[in-house]
Amino acid sequence: MKKLKILKIGGNAIDNPILLNKFLKDFTDIKDPKILIHGGGKLATDLANKLNIPQTLIEGRRITDSKTLDVAVMVYSGLINKNIVAKLQAFDCNAMGFCGADGNLVKSKKRIHETIDFGQVGDIKEVKEIQFKKIIEQGFVPVLSAITHDGNGNLLNTNADTMASKIAIAMSSIYEVELIYCFEKNGVLLDVNDDNSIINSIHKKDYEQMKEEKIIFEGMIPKLDNAFDALENGVKNVKICNAQNLNDYGTKLVESRFIATKHNLRQKNGLHQKNDSPQ
Amino acid sequence: MKKLKILKIGGNAIDNPILLNKFLKDFTDIKDPKILIHGGGKLATDLANKLNIPQTLIEGRRITDSKTLDVAVMVYSGLINKNIVAKLQAFDCNAMGFCGADGNLVKSKKRIHETIDFGQVGDIKEVKEIQFKKIIEQGFVPVLSAITHDGNGNLLNTNADTMASKIAIAMSSIYEVELIYCFEKNGVLLDVNDDNSIINSIHKKDYEQMKEEKIIFEGMIPKLDNAFDALENGVKNVKICNAQNLNDYGTKLVESRFIATKHNLRQKNGLHQKNDSPQ
Repeated sequence: MKKLKILKIGGNAIDNPILLNKFLKDFTDIKDPKILIHGGGKLATDLANKLNIPQTLIEGRRITDSKTLDVAVMVYSGLINKNIVAKLQAFDCNAMGFCGADGNLVKSKKRIHETIDFGQVGDIKEVKEIQFKKIIEQGFVPVLSAITHDGNGNLLNTNADTMASKIAIAMSSIYEVELIYCFEKNGVLLDVNDDNSIINSIHKKDYEQMKEEKIIFEGMIPKLDNAFDALENGVKNVKICNAQNLNDYGTKLVESRFIATKHNLRQKNGLHQKNDSPQ
Repeated sequence: MKKLKILKIGGNAIDNPILLNKFLKDFTDIKDPKILIHGGGKLATDLANKLNIPQTLIEGRRITDSKTLDVAVMVYSGLINKNIVAKLQAFDCNAMGFCGADGNLVKSKKRIHETIDFGQVGDIKEVKEIQFKKIIEQGFVPVLSAITHDGNGNLLNTNADTMASKIAIAMSSIYEVELIYCFEKNGVLLDVNDDNSIINSIHKKDYEQMKEEKIIFEGMIPKLDNAFDALENGVKNVKICNAQNLNDYGTKLVESRFIATKHNLRQKNGLHQKNDSPQ
């Protein structure tokens, strides 16, 4: 099986042009076939504010009314996507920018919730792995914004972490996939204020326990849920790391079971750092 | 040689969702391989106004400072492009949205002018016909916004009519190309206020004379210049017609010479309408 690397970049890593440039250079240097999925950074919120479109977040998810959807499409699929593609092209990486509607790559369904109206938000229903394969085999490098479509002509706002996970799962039927979530931290941290407190590896059951014990920073939970979903559904390797250190340490999600507590996680982190570090 | 149809849509045809929908349905029904190139309509100007970005036009061309470029990229390559793609997908047309940076499809060079600083405006230098062919042969239908890149990481605003012409010329080395400019009028009109005064066919030399005699409405000149450029550089057929009547009358640009004057053009228009109508 051929290898495929799927990287997701988001947050501060996109807002800072110098850091973004370094990341895109490192991404270009990856020799295996690859896909990049990007989030939105602060630009969409900034634009919505300038246009006096009120922004509402419920349970960490943006409520996407039709005006907010337009902003998301403009910023994610337009401004950010095309600037990333142009920068990658300058590095001789033959990037091709997409949203989920392009080539029918990622189809979703408008989220229906009993009490909350999320608006134009889509939950992914189908990833066309064969279409991705066609593009990759023609030598192009897909760069995706997290906008999808419902097949009835409507665009939908989608969570970029989930999109990365779902694409990685679908591509696992064709490739040996490594999924790498890149952000502004060095990995999953025991102490969110200590960049060196990286947890080198986490097993799902330990993760459930860590959630209960509130060892895991709340903002990391959706990302980790997506990461574990990928690992449990055919993706060979999943890693969470700093966008500035793709080849350096990070947090690897592993199959080997290890019951974590605050105490032994700290110990593990200290004692086994070299052995447990991701490849 | 396989046939390829290249359609360009712009102006009012994009601003009206009902008319756009009808056009996209007709576009879907075209059986030959095809490419769609779209302009921007009024949305970019509206967004620039809302963001208090002053807009300047010199010689009918938008002066594109960096903020205006961002607006163009957001509206053309984001909002319009992705909504067109989603609508085509709903009609089962496997559309794939691009700007010129994607797959390095269309490369341009920042326009340098002795007296006018056009800003981030690009003149097309290279169209990668082989990359287009790869995409088309995989069953995808390219849908292009008129944003290009310079290969050094910079996006550039480009005239959509010119983009259509340059792509058509490049694709003529591989396909038998028909280029169709679709807009809100029924074709090139003798009298801009009379929708029925369609000129059925125009030869380049007649066109030069008609420009001198100011028979041609000034706003049509850049479009016709691009159209003739295509015809003189390998494109088999070039037609200018109403976006709502793709298969109906329009103005065909022909090789057969015919010296036009106001008088005999009117006569020709009346006498030979059926024989001269495009196929």
